[in-house]
Amino acid sequence: MYEPFDMTMAIEAFRNRLVSGESQPLDWWHLCRERIAAREPEVQAWEVLAPRTPEPPAAGLLCGVPVGLKDIIETRDLPTAWGTGGYLGTPGSLVDAALVTLLERQGALIMGKTVTTELAYFTPGKTRNPHDLTRTPGGSSSGSAAAVAAGMVPLAFGTQTAGSIIRPASYCGVFGFKPTFDAVSLAGIKSFAPSLDTLGWFANHIEDICTTFSALTRAPAIDALPTLDGVRVGVRSLPSDRVLDADVQRALARTRIRLERLGANVVPLPLDERFAALVEYQKEVMAYEAAQTLASEHRQHADSMGPRLVALIEEGQTLPYARYRQAQQAANELRQVLSRFFVDEVDVILAASAQGVAPEGLQATGDPLFCRAWTLLGVPCLNLPLGRGHQGLPVGVQLIGDRFQDDRLLAIAGCLMQVRPG
Amino acid sequence: MYEPFDMTMAIEAFRNRLVSGESQPLDWWHLCRERIAAREPEVQAWEVLAPRTPEPPAAGLLCGVPVGLKDIIETRDLPTAWGTGGYLGTPGSLVDAALVTLLERQGALIMGKTVTTELAYFTPGKTRNPHDLTRTPGGSSSGSAAAVAAGMVPLAFGTQTAGSIIRPASYCGVFGFKPTFDAVSLAGIKSFAPSLDTLGWFANHIEDICTTFSALTRAPAIDALPTLDGVRVGVRSLPSDRVLDADVQRALARTRIRLERLGANVVPLPLDERFAALVEYQKEVMAYEAAQTLASEHRQHADSMGPRLVALIEEGQTLPYARYRQAQQAANELRQVLSRFFVDEVDVILAASAQGVAPEGLQATGDPLFCRAWTLLGVPCLNLPLGRGHQGLPVGVQLIGDRFQDDRLLAIAGCLMQVRPG
Repeated sequence: MYEPFDMTMAIEAFRNRLVSGESQPLDWWHLCRERIAAREPEVQAWEVLAPRTPEPPAAGLLCGVPVGLKDIIETRDLPTAWGTGGYLGTPGSLVDAALVTLLERQGALIMGKTVTTELAYFTPGKTRNPHDLTRTPGGSSSGSAAAVAAGMVPLAFGTQTAGSIIRPASYCGVFGFKPTFDAVSLAGIKSFAPSLDTLGWFANHIEDICTTFSALTRAPAIDALPTLDGVRVGVRSLPSDRVLDADVQRALARTRIRLERLGANVVPLPLDERFAALVEYQKEVMAYEAAQTLASEHRQHADSMGPRLVALIEEGQTLPYARYRQAQQAANELRQVLSRFFVDEVDVILAASAQGVAPEGLQATGDPLFCRAWTLLGVPCLNLPLGRGHQGLPVGVQLIGDRFQDDRLLAIAGCLMQVRPG
Repeated sequence: MYEPFDMTMAIEAFRNRLVSGESQPLDWWHLCRERIAAREPEVQAWEVLAPRTPEPPAAGLLCGVPVGLKDIIETRDLPTAWGTGGYLGTPGSLVDAALVTLLERQGALIMGKTVTTELAYFTPGKTRNPHDLTRTPGGSSSGSAAAVAAGMVPLAFGTQTAGSIIRPASYCGVFGFKPTFDAVSLAGIKSFAPSLDTLGWFANHIEDICTTFSALTRAPAIDALPTLDGVRVGVRSLPSDRVLDADVQRALARTRIRLERLGANVVPLPLDERFAALVEYQKEVMAYEAAQTLASEHRQHADSMGPRLVALIEEGQTLPYARYRQAQQAANELRQVLSRFFVDEVDVILAASAQGVAPEGLQATGDPLFCRAWTLLGVPCLNLPLGRGHQGLPVGVQLIGDRFQDDRLLAIAGCLMQVRPG
């Protein structure tokens, strides 16, 4: 039998235990299964679990790490239902999603498929927030965020088209990382709006976010900066004209203090008024592309689809091409403008992840509003589970870097997370 | 029975016949089936044909237009084999590719699946060039180009990751259009390198290229410019340090004369030396992304795969992330530089589509070299079948516009094509 250990240890600590012989490659798997048996009846994070214990993995950056996959990620050996409750579903796909092979090549163990909202839009699944079972975990990557927060797996994958990683990470109190657009292949993952869809992941440790980035992209290992001396942080949420809940304001203020204590120079970021239009542009790009991308699903299954999804697709079907083009062109231009800010003014941006803590009820998944602009810009975004709001509920903030500067963003976040909260 | 008519008429002319009652909605379908029966034994453009005559379509911009789909485009009712000869294959997918619904909504009729190279890379299928059966039609969209060139269908779809539309269009003497990156959804189409893959189409008339663009994007109808007075054309092939075959040089010179006769101002385009690196960058992006995207296919089927595909994937598996990132960042920057050229200096660029006419033999599909840079830049590219080379073989040239200026590019090309060759 396996030796019990701290379930919430970081991936690297488990790798060290494997090297020293303290743990065997399937130990974490078995611990996770126990944890799932205990917590799943309440949390309901899983659509389906792997029916068998896998072969012991040999090696890799993720050797023996059990992972959850959002149920829009296709697998040969497990069914996929895309959160449709059955109107779309397959007992197994012809080919695994590329992600599955990239993970298994690094020794990861596929624990199962996590609950997603319907086709990764708004209609919720069954999952509850592990911190308060009467509240939403957020969406669309609901089950992945909740599974990590409940300690059922140390790593789980999701996708973000509007705010489907950062928002549930904030509500569930875990790290959630959306890398630069196109950093990891979406092959075998249901698309929604191809110029926005981004694969990302949840973990309980910033180091695990970094390890996973290296494992999937083959980027060099990312070390936390020793200090934030000279690091410039711009504070700016988008949209900027909304009053954030006091919980979020406090979390931002506390993060700012932590940053400054580490030597960072924290300043307001003066983004001009063109950035205010990005939220609307993101909605238009999403509607236009979803209407194209889900045209066949809509034709076959509109009667079974949730009304909000049907409404989005039908809105997209009537959105003029000129509007779509304008939104894309503006986004292109603002990506360049923002890149110049990242050269001239700041290293990272600090922003709200969401309006407040996880809303009450399971009939909706909260609002992705504060993620929309950043997703359209294609920049890497990292939710830091740094705050506690009323009733002790988690409150996240995001750190945002420039496109392809994922390693820089993660190195800064790594430093920030080494300090105990002040 | 149907009334015979000119098979090679434009889509709009057929629509007029439908309106006037001269033709019935399935007439073009039946004519195409006859043409396929006559030509297919030699040309071998089709992987599978629709087994039944479809229901008569009611309306739409493509009402009654038979279309061919490259066999990486998934369909519920027809098998897909992705050019693998069987190591991957399905008798029918769970959902149609988005394109299928977008086409059928406009009244198009799916004639069948056209031959593709293996997974849209280099290993050729069975298709021959209709202009000389001993020569390649080009690839990877081999069957779609050949089917249109042989008059088997007026419209067929393919994808371009390096040069898979423009090159076969040039070799087969048809129009081939690769719109702006992301203009039409690839949902349900096998991906290869997601930041390069672009859906496009082949036709015998520039008007049909335009009609199809409007049908799929809902952009307004595109009219040919009445004259090219004031239109600025920059001449520049990429790479620019290769000597083009005399056939292509003559085709470029003749196109230049036609442009000038219509009032255009034709000048050399001074792109700086950074553009010279784009060909290598495209290769690196393609290898890196293919290694990720086809990771599962490679794991399951490397033994059955063609050696060039295996070599590309394995090259991509070892390409450092830093090289991939550098290529993507350089491409981003050059997209902006080129956009400024498109504002300040030129309206369109005239460039070689390929080194020369279709090479002899069916063991290879020619070189996409002269398309690689433009594909990485994401700009719309249109092959014009304007030239005839030695032995009367087709020679194309490309016109290239700025991203999202597809309508401007097509309006200029429309004017150019109204003049008879001088």
